[in-house]
Amino acid sequence: MTGFVSFVSSGPGDPELLTLKAVDRLKRADAVLFDDLSSGPILDHARSGADMVAVGKRAGRPSPRQDHVSRLLVDYAQLDQRVVRLKSGDSGVFGRLEEEITALKAAGIPYEIIPGVPSANAAAAAAGIPLTRRLTARRVQYVTGHDVTGALPEDVNMAALADPGATTVVFMGKRTFPKLAARLIAAGLPPETPAILAEAVSRPDQQISRHTVSALSDRLARETGDQPALILYGPLAES
Amino acid sequence: MTGFVSFVSSGPGDPELLTLKAVDRLKRADAVLFDDLSSGPILDHARSGADMVAVGKRAGRPSPRQDHVSRLLVDYAQLDQRVVRLKSGDSGVFGRLEEEITALKAAGIPYEIIPGVPSANAAAAAAGIPLTRRLTARRVQYVTGHDVTGALPEDVNMAALADPGATTVVFMGKRTFPKLAARLIAAGLPPETPAILAEAVSRPDQQISRHTVSALSDRLARETGDQPALILYGPLAES
Repeated sequence: MTGFVSFVSSGPGDPELLTLKAVDRLKRADAVLFDDLSSGPILDHARSGADMVAVGKRAGRPSPRQDHVSRLLVDYAQLDQRVVRLKSGDSGVFGRLEEEITALKAAGIPYEIIPGVPSANAAAAAAGIPLTRRLTARRVQYVTGHDVTGALPEDVNMAALADPGATTVVFMGKRTFPKLAARLIAAGLPPETPAILAEAVSRPDQQISRHTVSALSDRLARETGDQPALILYGPLAES
Repeated sequence: MTGFVSFVSSGPGDPELLTLKAVDRLKRADAVLFDDLSSGPILDHARSGADMVAVGKRAGRPSPRQDHVSRLLVDYAQLDQRVVRLKSGDSGVFGRLEEEITALKAAGIPYEIIPGVPSANAAAAAAGIPLTRRLTARRVQYVTGHDVTGALPEDVNMAALADPGATTVVFMGKRTFPKLAARLIAAGLPPETPAILAEAVSRPDQQISRHTVSALSDRLARETGDQPALILYGPLAES
């Protein structure tokens, strides 16, 4: 059997933020399984004739069943295909990689993971700031703002998240941020802690806006959209 | 004045993990300032005729004064050069970017940050595992294992770092890990928590080894080398 699966990280969306290795794997793929967030011009690197399979999954929209995606991966690999499973950002960060890896292992199918540019790092770069700073931000952390039901996870470590000496990036957390912010402030995070809302990071319609944690919470409590966005808070001064 | 500085993230070392945008900026640079960890074949993308300036800085070795590097950046930009400041991994993660940005702002020189693949994400990918997992690792955090004096920073948030429900990546922490591990275990992290030592990530001499936190601490207490390495601990099961 020669089937093989490459989990390829597509980066945050800008096709120029693909790695050379990601381009190589796309060019050599017999089948590409991709999400909404890793589509567009990135897919142009695949050869004509490759199977292109949209398994759309996006914050706030109904997801195809995860076991359906895993089944497709196994099926293509068992047909001796070179399969690329494209995931936005870095596939190891909130990409639910473990569920697909488990299915491949159960079927005895070899795989590799190609790391990529996480959307959090692209958001900070777009804002012109580093994620860590000597003395004031010796720790950076990424958390998810929703669990499988779409709610703020109950078991978050508030001592970790309310630490003003860390830079925190909340993924998929626009809708739940007012609730998180209230808990952060109750746990001791100063309400005036700088916050950045980064929407459509690295895409033509990118929007980066600066707030405080409490002001951003107020704003998002009045919004209903749920476009992909990241929220950063902590020592985010421009220099 | 047309001088401009691009902070370009070179990724963890494998030249194939450069982004297309990083390659573009290297090709168009008049001057490239690089560290030891972002050298080698990556530099071949620069055009012949560009000034190539080694400002070597590496864990465990004496560093050139940071203000010397900032001075060089400003000097080149004031000569109307397109300058690439190459930094390993993602430049926003423990790249001490803020000091160089401050110098550019003071001199009125425009800059951009090109994000890249952080070495932490490449290490997890090389180990075949994701950094986050639904339910068991909803948070991932990066910390530095040494401050400017080379010692373990005293002001680390132990409640955050000893959380068995997060994946933690320690940068530049090989030498100080025995001390950190003792503090983590005292703060409640189970000594048998899985740990990975990732050395020379994505390079030909890459070594990935699996341990527990206590066993890795014992091993590193007996070692004297200080090659670049990352330590991961947390819910790191292979699937």
